[in-house]
Amino acid sequence: MDDFVQSKARKDIFRLKAYVPGKPIEEVKRELGLDSIIKLASNENPLGTSPLALAALQEGLNKIHLYPDANAYELKQELASFWQVPAEQIVVGNGSDELLLLLAQTFINPGDEVIHAEQTFSEYESTSTLMGAHSITIPLKEYKYDLKAILEAINTRTKIIYLCNPNNPTGTIVEQEEIELFMQQVPGEILVVFDEAYGEYVDNPAFGSGLQYLREGRNIVLLKTFSKIYGLAGLRIGYVITTPAIAAALDRVREPFNVNFAAQIAAQAALRDIDFVEKSRQLNLQGKDYLYQELARLGLDYVKTNTNFIFLDTGRDCQLVFRELLQRGVIIRTGDIFGYPTFIRLTIGTMEENRRFIKSLQEVLEVIPL
Amino acid sequence: MDDFVQSKARKDIFRLKAYVPGKPIEEVKRELGLDSIIKLASNENPLGTSPLALAALQEGLNKIHLYPDANAYELKQELASFWQVPAEQIVVGNGSDELLLLLAQTFINPGDEVIHAEQTFSEYESTSTLMGAHSITIPLKEYKYDLKAILEAINTRTKIIYLCNPNNPTGTIVEQEEIELFMQQVPGEILVVFDEAYGEYVDNPAFGSGLQYLREGRNIVLLKTFSKIYGLAGLRIGYVITTPAIAAALDRVREPFNVNFAAQIAAQAALRDIDFVEKSRQLNLQGKDYLYQELARLGLDYVKTNTNFIFLDTGRDCQLVFRELLQRGVIIRTGDIFGYPTFIRLTIGTMEENRRFIKSLQEVLEVIPL
Repeated sequence: MDDFVQSKARKDIFRLKAYVPGKPIEEVKRELGLDSIIKLASNENPLGTSPLALAALQEGLNKIHLYPDANAYELKQELASFWQVPAEQIVVGNGSDELLLLLAQTFINPGDEVIHAEQTFSEYESTSTLMGAHSITIPLKEYKYDLKAILEAINTRTKIIYLCNPNNPTGTIVEQEEIELFMQQVPGEILVVFDEAYGEYVDNPAFGSGLQYLREGRNIVLLKTFSKIYGLAGLRIGYVITTPAIAAALDRVREPFNVNFAAQIAAQAALRDIDFVEKSRQLNLQGKDYLYQELARLGLDYVKTNTNFIFLDTGRDCQLVFRELLQRGVIIRTGDIFGYPTFIRLTIGTMEENRRFIKSLQEVLEVIPL
Repeated sequence: MDDFVQSKARKDIFRLKAYVPGKPIEEVKRELGLDSIIKLASNENPLGTSPLALAALQEGLNKIHLYPDANAYELKQELASFWQVPAEQIVVGNGSDELLLLLAQTFINPGDEVIHAEQTFSEYESTSTLMGAHSITIPLKEYKYDLKAILEAINTRTKIIYLCNPNNPTGTIVEQEEIELFMQQVPGEILVVFDEAYGEYVDNPAFGSGLQYLREGRNIVLLKTFSKIYGLAGLRIGYVITTPAIAAALDRVREPFNVNFAAQIAAQAALRDIDFVEKSRQLNLQGKDYLYQELARLGLDYVKTNTNFIFLDTGRDCQLVFRELLQRGVIIRTGDIFGYPTFIRLTIGTMEENRRFIKSLQEVLEVIPL
């Protein structure tokens, strides 16, 4: 950093931690000279993209020289009908990341506090820190968001509480009943953000969405994405459902052309592709069963998941495990960035990818002594 | 707005003015039931998208379920070689809009001042206002940025000066010589942003890019876009070239997956499509000649342009002109949002579109008395 940046930039930016993304396949190819690589690092859909979305894109390519609809009118109509909420309660963004940033830009004043788990998606902290907030981080309890401790951390400076449900990287959920108790006690002037990016993968009937509290008129934000089960991570698109007033405030702050045209038309088609979503869910369940069995066979502990990834304890330095897996063409995410130095986060892949992962992991466990 | 937003949101957001986007074709179809519509409102490329970019997209669609490269590695390599600057001096964004926001998020503290023309691209004001800046707006002089008046407006609170060159909506440039004098007098601790979104259309040899001041080690930011001559407005992609330290600061603030994969691969291909750029430039010159002639024939004044749009005085209420043109299936931008209530901003289209515009305009001038 030079003197100009040091003296002229906002002080908050120096508090930001660098984000550690999943290593891109092309980068691994460049660095290791490997041909066949599988990426089980970023919880993408191993089936690819919804065929309906691909068809919509094929048809739409001849319009990409035109600016996208600044209001995402068509997509919002579809989402409104899908969720049975008025379109004016929906705001579409350039992925959940941008929507979290929008929330911080709209609500965070310097000195405000936000609360979230210590081991969770990093963007709650980075987006609010950028706007001058202090993050109060609550350790997970048995790999789960500890709602009781969160309630105890509330004070007059608390502006936003983030609940990642299911939680990334642990895959755990807080159940309907716990949320109900929590919402009864959260003061109405605190904004509660339910990040349900992985909601479509949940197969536990005890799960409860935050959406109902919106219907009850509470000031909550429900955060959804097309990056996971809908297979559109590369196009960047997510959305929030919230109160009309909060949606209007976010719209005021939002850049007019924040969501690209390809993402808008692909998302519209993907939302209608019930078959693809169901197939993705089934493949995920099948992979989960297989991986649970194999991890047990290898004697490894893992956290039971409600998502398309598994957080598992290798019992070894996760950076070593990462590098050995990488040598074998398998990219996963290390747990150290989440505070678990012997864990890795593994995306459930196709059955072929899952088998290759297990074969590679078995080799790696033999190479790295306990 | 409800009480919650009123009491909890940041005060700066209430100072934001709503952006007025060019009306989308689909919206006009919905509202007026028209079939054949031409949009000459948003300075898109009437030839569509570079064929090389379209081919790259066709090939890349099978990867859109994967997150984009957070570092836009390949694209930055190409841009670095195109501009002969190191890749670490480049930051890629979700359109120029996001890059302007990034600049404000990185540098603007509450109470800072920014300076730009009064009649210019609106995002300089909105992005810096969001972060708490006050805009000092300098009236254009003969439709041009008044660099002398800008220098006089500098004080100790000045953080950023924005120069839109060529200027939107007037199409004028400040010349190399004027910039040179200006840069000699701007204090080194002020960040100068050269927005050269329309630079590829300039055919006046007196034009000078801000890039040379970067090579001289000054703290400047050069802003470029793929939305105009490269025909990728729908995908949202632009970039800045700046000092290594400013680039690193912007990267720190930037969301990791801000630029979608489709935009990255399309931009890479578009940059290589010299033929398409040259064809676009030629078509634009041809259209400009034709429109100059026809506007003179209709007795209308216009500002001589260095871009792909013409700012012209209809002598009538531009909202009336807008509505009458809309009825005839022609979308243009009104000048009132820029402070010119009788002007319209017209994108130079294909020759067929230009002829249709002139025919419609002639009718409209007869319908609306002077």
